[in-house]
Amino acid sequence: MNTLELARKRCSIRQYSDLPVEKDKLEYILEVARLAPSACNRQPWRFLIVTSEEGREKLHRTYAREWIKPVPLFIVICGDHEQSWKRPADGKDHLDTDAGIVMEHICLAAAEKDLGTCIICHFDAALLSVELNLPGSVEPVAIIPVGYPADPELFVKTAKMRKPMNEILVTF
Amino acid sequence: MNTLELARKRCSIRQYSDLPVEKDKLEYILEVARLAPSACNRQPWRFLIVTSEEGREKLHRTYAREWIKPVPLFIVICGDHEQSWKRPADGKDHLDTDAGIVMEHICLAAAEKDLGTCIICHFDAALLSVELNLPGSVEPVAIIPVGYPADPELFVKTAKMRKPMNEILVTF
Repeated sequence: MNTLELARKRCSIRQYSDLPVEKDKLEYILEVARLAPSACNRQPWRFLIVTSEEGREKLHRTYAREWIKPVPLFIVICGDHEQSWKRPADGKDHLDTDAGIVMEHICLAAAEKDLGTCIICHFDAALLSVELNLPGSVEPVAIIPVGYPADPELFVKTAKMRKPMNEILVTF
Repeated sequence: MNTLELARKRCSIRQYSDLPVEKDKLEYILEVARLAPSACNRQPWRFLIVTSEEGREKLHRTYAREWIKPVPLFIVICGDHEQSWKRPADGKDHLDTDAGIVMEHICLAAAEKDLGTCIICHFDAALLSVELNLPGSVEPVAIIPVGYPADPELFVKTAKMRKPMNEILVTF
Protein backbone atom coordinates (compact mmCIF):
# COMPACT_ATOMS: atom_id res chain seq x y z
CA MET A 1 0.00 0.00 0.00
CA ASN A 2 1.65 3.26 -1.06
CA THR A 3 1.31 6.56 0.80
CA LEU A 4 -1.44 7.83 -1.47
CA GLU A 5 -3.53 4.71 -0.90
CA LEU A 6 -2.82 4.99 2.80
CA ALA A 7 -3.77 8.68 2.92
CA ARG A 8 -7.03 7.73 1.21
CA LYS A 9 -7.67 4.86 3.61
CA ARG A 10 -6.94 6.72 6.87
CA CYS A 11 -10.07 8.43 8.07
CA SER A 12 -11.63 9.44 11.36
CA ILE A 13 -13.30 6.30 12.67
CA ARG A 14 -16.02 6.92 15.25
CA GLN A 15 -17.61 3.46 15.38
CA TYR A 16 -15.52 0.78 17.04
CA SER A 17 -15.77 -2.87 17.89
CA ASP A 18 -14.40 -3.91 21.29
CA LEU A 19 -11.94 -6.38 19.75
CA PRO A 20 -8.55 -6.02 21.41
CA VAL A 21 -5.58 -4.66 19.50
CA GLU A 22 -2.91 -7.29 19.00
CA LYS A 23 0.35 -6.65 20.87
CA ASP A 24 2.49 -6.93 17.73
CA LYS A 25 0.34 -4.39 15.91
CA LEU A 26 0.61 -1.92 18.78
CA GLU A 27 4.37 -2.40 18.90
CA TYR A 28 4.56 -1.81 15.15
CA ILE A 29 2.58 1.42 15.41
CA LEU A 30 4.67 2.67 18.31
CA GLU A 31 7.91 1.93 16.49
CA VAL A 32 6.71 3.91 13.46
CA ALA A 33 5.90 6.74 15.89
CA ARG A 34 9.22 6.51 17.69
CA LEU A 35 11.05 7.10 14.40
CA ALA A 36 9.15 10.31 13.62
CA PRO A 37 11.19 13.47 13.08
CA SER A 38 10.96 16.45 15.42
CA ALA A 39 12.40 19.94 15.59
CA CYS A 40 16.11 19.66 16.43
CA ASN A 41 15.39 15.98 17.10
CA ARG A 42 14.16 16.85 20.58
CA GLN A 43 11.44 14.14 20.53
CA PRO A 44 9.52 16.01 23.22
CA TRP A 45 6.70 13.47 23.14
CA ARG A 46 5.41 10.85 25.51
CA PHE A 47 2.93 8.18 24.46
CA LEU A 48 0.51 7.19 27.21
CA ILE A 49 -1.00 3.81 26.48
CA VAL A 50 -4.39 3.49 28.10
CA THR A 51 -6.11 0.10 28.15
CA SER A 52 -7.29 -0.35 31.74
CA GLU A 53 -10.93 0.27 32.58
CA GLU A 54 -9.90 2.89 35.10
CA GLY A 55 -7.72 4.70 32.57
CA ARG A 56 -10.42 4.58 29.91
CA GLU A 57 -12.95 6.00 32.37
CA LYS A 58 -10.57 8.84 33.11
CA LEU A 59 -10.34 9.65 29.42
CA HIS A 60 -14.11 9.45 29.10
CA ARG A 61 -14.52 12.02 31.82
CA THR A 62 -12.47 14.45 29.73
CA TYR A 63 -14.23 13.57 26.47
CA ALA A 64 -17.69 12.33 27.31
CA ARG A 65 -18.77 10.74 24.04
CA GLU A 66 -20.57 7.42 23.83
CA TRP A 67 -18.70 6.33 20.72
CA ILE A 68 -15.35 6.01 22.52
CA LYS A 69 -16.74 3.55 25.09
CA PRO A 70 -16.00 0.29 23.22
CA VAL A 71 -12.51 1.40 22.20
CA PRO A 72 -10.01 -1.06 23.73
CA LEU A 73 -6.92 1.14 23.52
CA PHE A 74 -6.04 4.80 23.53
CA ILE A 75 -2.75 6.50 22.87
CA VAL A 76 -2.55 9.89 24.54
CA ILE A 77 0.04 12.05 22.82
CA CYS A 78 1.72 14.31 25.34
CA GLY A 79 4.42 16.89 24.79
CA ASP A 80 6.91 18.20 27.31
CA HIS A 81 7.41 21.94 26.93
CA GLU A 82 10.70 21.66 28.79
CA GLN A 83 12.02 19.43 26.01
CA SER A 84 10.52 20.98 22.89
CA TRP A 85 12.57 23.23 20.62
CA LYS A 86 11.95 26.96 20.72
CA ARG A 87 13.11 29.06 17.77
CA PRO A 88 15.75 31.43 19.13
CA ALA A 89 14.67 34.45 17.06
CA ASP A 90 11.08 34.61 18.27
CA GLY A 91 10.73 31.89 20.90
CA LYS A 92 8.15 29.93 18.91
CA ASP A 93 7.58 26.59 20.65
CA HIS A 94 7.58 23.70 18.16
CA LEU A 95 5.89 21.19 20.43
CA ASP A 96 2.65 21.15 18.46
CA THR A 97 4.24 20.64 15.05
CA ASP A 98 6.20 17.73 16.55
CA ALA A 99 3.00 16.34 18.07
CA GLY A 100 1.22 16.65 14.73
CA ILE A 101 3.96 14.71 12.97
CA VAL A 102 4.03 11.88 15.47
CA MET A 103 0.25 11.51 15.79
CA GLU A 104 -0.01 11.12 12.03
CA HIS A 105 2.67 8.44 12.04
CA ILE A 106 0.42 6.60 14.48
CA CYS A 107 -2.73 7.05 12.41
CA LEU A 108 -1.10 6.01 9.14
CA ALA A 109 0.57 2.94 10.65
CA ALA A 110 -2.72 1.95 12.30
CA ALA A 111 -4.68 2.31 9.06
CA GLU A 112 -2.13 0.13 7.31
CA LYS A 113 -2.90 -2.53 9.92
CA ASP A 114 -6.68 -2.11 9.43
CA LEU A 115 -7.00 -0.31 12.75
CA GLY A 116 -9.17 2.75 13.04
CA THR A 117 -8.08 5.97 14.73
CA CYS A 118 -9.38 9.46 15.27
CA ILE A 119 -7.34 12.44 16.43
CA ILE A 120 -9.30 13.87 19.33
CA CYS A 121 -8.30 17.35 20.51
CA HIS A 122 -11.67 18.56 21.77
CA PHE A 123 -11.22 17.15 25.28
CA ASP A 124 -10.89 18.91 28.61
CA ALA A 125 -7.13 19.36 28.65
CA ALA A 126 -6.93 20.79 32.16
CA LEU A 127 -8.95 17.91 33.56
CA LEU A 128 -6.93 15.32 31.64
CA SER A 129 -3.70 16.69 33.12
CA VAL A 130 -5.20 16.19 36.56
CA GLU A 131 -6.66 12.75 35.80
CA LEU A 132 -3.34 11.48 34.46
CA ASN A 133 -1.30 13.35 37.06
CA LEU A 134 0.89 14.96 34.41
CA PRO A 135 3.82 17.15 35.43
CA GLY A 136 3.25 20.87 34.83
CA SER A 137 5.45 21.05 31.75
CA VAL A 138 3.68 18.12 30.05
CA GLU A 139 0.69 18.93 27.85
CA PRO A 140 -1.78 16.33 26.59
CA VAL A 141 -2.13 17.26 22.91
CA ALA A 142 -4.35 14.53 21.52
CA ILE A 143 -6.24 11.42 22.52
CA ILE A 144 -6.11 8.77 19.81
CA PRO A 145 -8.50 5.83 20.08
CA VAL A 146 -7.09 2.74 18.37
CA GLY A 147 -9.28 -0.20 17.53
CA TYR A 148 -11.02 -2.19 14.84
CA PRO A 149 -13.84 -0.31 13.16
CA ALA A 150 -17.30 -1.72 13.88
CA ASP A 151 -17.45 -2.32 10.14
CA PRO A 152 -14.27 -2.67 8.04
CA GLU A 153 -16.13 -0.95 5.23
CA LEU A 154 -15.92 2.27 7.25
CA PHE A 155 -12.45 2.74 5.78
CA VAL A 156 -14.08 3.01 2.38
CA LYS A 157 -17.43 4.51 3.31
CA THR A 158 -16.28 7.37 5.52
CA ALA A 159 -16.45 10.51 3.43
CA LYS A 160 -13.31 12.61 3.16
CA MET A 161 -14.13 16.17 2.17
CA ARG A 162 -11.09 18.15 1.12
CA LYS A 163 -10.48 21.49 -0.51
CA PRO A 164 -9.56 21.26 -4.19
CA MET A 165 -5.90 21.66 -4.99
CA ASN A 166 -6.30 25.11 -6.53
CA GLU A 167 -7.54 26.46 -3.20
CA ILE A 168 -4.48 25.39 -1.26
CA LEU A 169 -1.71 25.79 -3.81
CA VAL A 170 0.29 28.91 -4.68
CA THR A 171 3.23 28.86 -7.10
CA PHE A 172 6.17 31.26 -6.96
CA MET B 1 7.13 -0.23 1.21
CA ASN B 2 5.23 -0.29 4.49
CA THR B 3 5.03 2.61 6.93
CA LEU B 4 7.80 1.23 9.14
CA GLU B 5 10.18 0.92 6.20
CA LEU B 6 9.14 4.41 5.10
CA ALA B 7 9.65 5.88 8.58
CA ARG B 8 13.12 4.34 8.57
CA LYS B 9 13.90 5.67 5.09
CA ARG B 10 12.72 9.26 5.63
CA CYS B 11 15.51 11.34 7.06
CA SER B 12 16.68 14.92 6.97
CA ILE B 13 18.59 15.27 3.71
CA ARG B 14 21.00 18.20 3.60
CA GLN B 15 22.96 17.34 0.45
CA TYR B 16 21.06 17.71 -2.79
CA SER B 17 21.67 17.32 -6.48
CA ASP B 18 20.16 19.97 -8.74
CA LEU B 19 18.14 17.42 -10.70
CA PRO B 20 14.60 18.71 -11.23
CA VAL B 21 11.65 17.05 -9.51
CA GLU B 22 9.35 15.36 -12.01
CA LYS B 23 5.91 16.95 -12.31
CA ASP B 24 4.07 13.68 -11.66
CA LYS B 25 6.04 13.09 -8.47
CA LEU B 26 5.27 16.59 -7.22
CA GLU B 27 1.59 16.09 -8.00
CA TYR B 28 1.63 12.77 -6.15
CA ILE B 29 3.21 14.35 -3.07
CA LEU B 30 0.76 17.23 -3.08
CA GLU B 31 -2.22 14.91 -3.39
CA VAL B 32 -1.02 12.90 -0.38
CA ALA B 33 -0.72 16.22 1.46
CA ARG B 34 -4.13 17.44 0.36
CA LEU B 35 -5.76 14.35 1.91
CA ALA B 36 -4.19 14.95 5.34
CA PRO B 37 -6.52 15.30 8.30
CA SER B 38 -6.82 18.51 10.29
CA ALA B 39 -8.66 19.69 13.37
CA CYS B 40 -12.36 19.96 12.52
CA ASN B 41 -11.27 19.41 8.91
CA ARG B 42 -10.43 23.09 8.60
CA GLN B 43 -7.44 22.42 6.31
CA PRO B 44 -5.96 25.80 7.26
CA TRP B 45 -2.87 25.20 5.15
CA ARG B 46 -1.47 26.66 1.98
CA PHE B 47 1.36 25.04 0.05
CA LEU B 48 3.64 27.55 -1.64
CA ILE B 49 5.59 25.91 -4.42
CA VAL B 50 8.86 27.71 -5.03
CA THR B 51 10.94 26.79 -8.07
CA SER B 52 11.88 30.13 -9.64
CA GLU B 53 15.35 31.54 -9.08
CA GLU B 54 13.83 34.67 -7.59
CA GLY B 55 11.66 32.67 -5.20
CA ARG B 56 14.55 30.45 -4.14
CA GLU B 57 16.70 33.53 -3.50
CA LYS B 58 13.96 34.91 -1.28
CA LEU B 59 13.95 31.71 0.75
CA HIS B 60 17.72 31.75 0.97
CA ARG B 61 17.62 35.24 2.45
CA THR B 62 15.49 33.88 5.29
CA TYR B 63 17.60 30.74 5.75
CA ALA B 64 21.10 31.49 4.56
CA ARG B 65 22.61 28.02 4.32
CA GLU B 66 24.79 26.91 1.42
CA TRP B 67 23.29 23.44 1.34
CA ILE B 68 19.87 24.58 0.16
CA LYS B 69 21.33 26.33 -2.94
CA PRO B 70 21.11 23.39 -5.38
CA VAL B 71 17.61 22.40 -4.26
CA PRO B 72 15.30 22.72 -7.29
CA LEU B 73 11.99 22.91 -5.41
CA PHE B 74 10.71 24.07 -2.07
CA ILE B 75 7.30 23.66 -0.51
CA VAL B 76 6.59 26.34 2.06
CA ILE B 77 3.90 25.17 4.47
CA CYS B 78 1.80 28.10 5.56
CA GLY B 79 -1.14 28.14 7.93
CA ASP B 80 -3.95 30.65 8.08
CA HIS B 81 -4.83 31.53 11.67
CA GLU B 82 -8.21 32.79 10.49
CA GLN B 83 -9.05 29.28 9.29
CA SER B 84 -7.50 27.07 11.94
CA TRP B 85 -9.58 25.46 14.67
CA LYS B 86 -9.40 26.90 18.15
CA ARG B 87 -10.55 24.72 21.07
CA PRO B 88 -13.56 26.49 22.60
CA ALA B 89 -12.66 25.71 26.23
CA ASP B 90 -9.22 27.31 26.23
CA GLY B 91 -8.78 28.89 22.81
CA LYS B 92 -5.85 26.67 21.86
CA ASP B 93 -5.03 27.23 18.20
CA HIS B 94 -4.52 23.92 16.37
CA LEU B 95 -2.72 25.38 13.37
CA ASP B 96 0.65 23.88 14.28
CA THR B 97 -0.61 20.36 14.86
CA ASP B 98 -2.33 20.54 11.47
CA ALA B 99 0.87 21.85 9.90
CA GLY B 100 2.86 19.05 11.49
CA ILE B 101 0.51 16.44 10.08
CA VAL B 102 0.57 17.80 6.55
CA MET B 103 4.32 18.39 6.41
CA GLU B 104 4.93 14.79 7.37
CA HIS B 105 2.56 13.58 4.66
CA ILE B 106 4.83 15.48 2.26
CA CYS B 107 8.06 14.06 3.66
CA LEU B 108 6.82 10.47 3.70
CA ALA B 109 5.40 10.64 0.17
CA ALA B 110 8.63 12.23 -1.06
CA ALA B 111 10.80 9.56 0.57
CA GLU B 112 8.66 6.90 -1.06
CA LYS B 113 9.52 8.51 -4.41
CA ASP B 114 13.25 8.62 -3.53
CA LEU B 115 13.10 12.38 -2.98
CA GLY B 116 14.87 13.94 -0.06
CA THR B 117 13.29 16.49 2.26
CA CYS B 118 14.13 18.33 5.44
CA ILE B 119 11.69 20.19 7.64
CA ILE B 120 13.23 23.61 8.14
CA CYS B 121 11.76 25.77 10.89
CA HIS B 122 14.85 27.75 11.84
CA PHE B 123 14.28 30.49 9.25
CA ASP B 124 13.50 34.17 9.70
CA ALA B 125 9.71 33.93 9.81
CA ALA B 126 9.07 37.66 9.91
CA LEU B 127 11.29 38.24 6.89
CA LEU B 128 9.75 35.32 4.98
CA SER B 129 6.28 36.79 5.49
CA VAL B 130 7.53 40.02 3.94
CA GLU B 131 9.44 38.32 1.10
CA LEU B 132 6.40 36.24 0.14
CA ASN B 133 3.96 39.06 0.80
CA LEU B 134 1.82 36.87 3.06
CA PRO B 135 -1.42 38.24 4.53
CA GLY B 136 -1.22 39.02 8.25
CA SER B 137 -3.18 35.94 9.31
CA VAL B 138 -0.97 33.56 7.32
CA GLU B 139 2.08 32.15 9.07
CA PRO B 140 4.93 30.36 7.30
CA VAL B 141 5.45 27.28 9.47
CA ALA B 142 8.07 25.30 7.58
CA ILE B 143 10.23 25.40 4.48
CA ILE B 144 10.62 21.96 2.95
CA PRO B 145 13.30 21.47 0.29
CA VAL B 146 12.39 18.67 -2.10
CA GLY B 147 14.95 17.12 -4.39
CA TYR B 148 17.13 14.14 -5.15
CA PRO B 149 19.85 13.54 -2.58
CA ALA B 150 23.37 14.15 -3.87
CA ASP B 151 23.89 10.45 -3.13
CA PRO B 152 20.95 8.01 -2.97
CA GLU B 153 22.83 6.19 -0.22
CA LEU B 154 22.08 9.14 2.06
CA PHE B 155 18.70 7.53 2.73
CA VAL B 156 20.56 4.63 4.30
CA LYS B 157 23.63 6.39 5.64
CA THR B 158 22.00 9.29 7.45
CA ALA B 159 21.97 8.45 11.14
CA LYS B 160 18.62 8.53 12.90
CA MET B 161 19.12 8.93 16.65
CA ARG B 162 15.97 8.26 18.62
CA LYS B 163 15.10 7.80 22.26
CA PRO B 164 14.53 4.19 23.26
CA MET B 165 10.90 3.15 23.62
CA ASN B 166 11.04 2.94 27.42
CA GLU B 167 11.85 6.65 27.61
CA ILE B 168 8.78 7.74 25.70
CA LEU B 169 6.18 5.19 26.74
CA VAL B 170 3.93 5.20 29.79
CA THR B 171 1.22 2.59 30.36
CA PHE B 172 -1.97 3.18 32.31
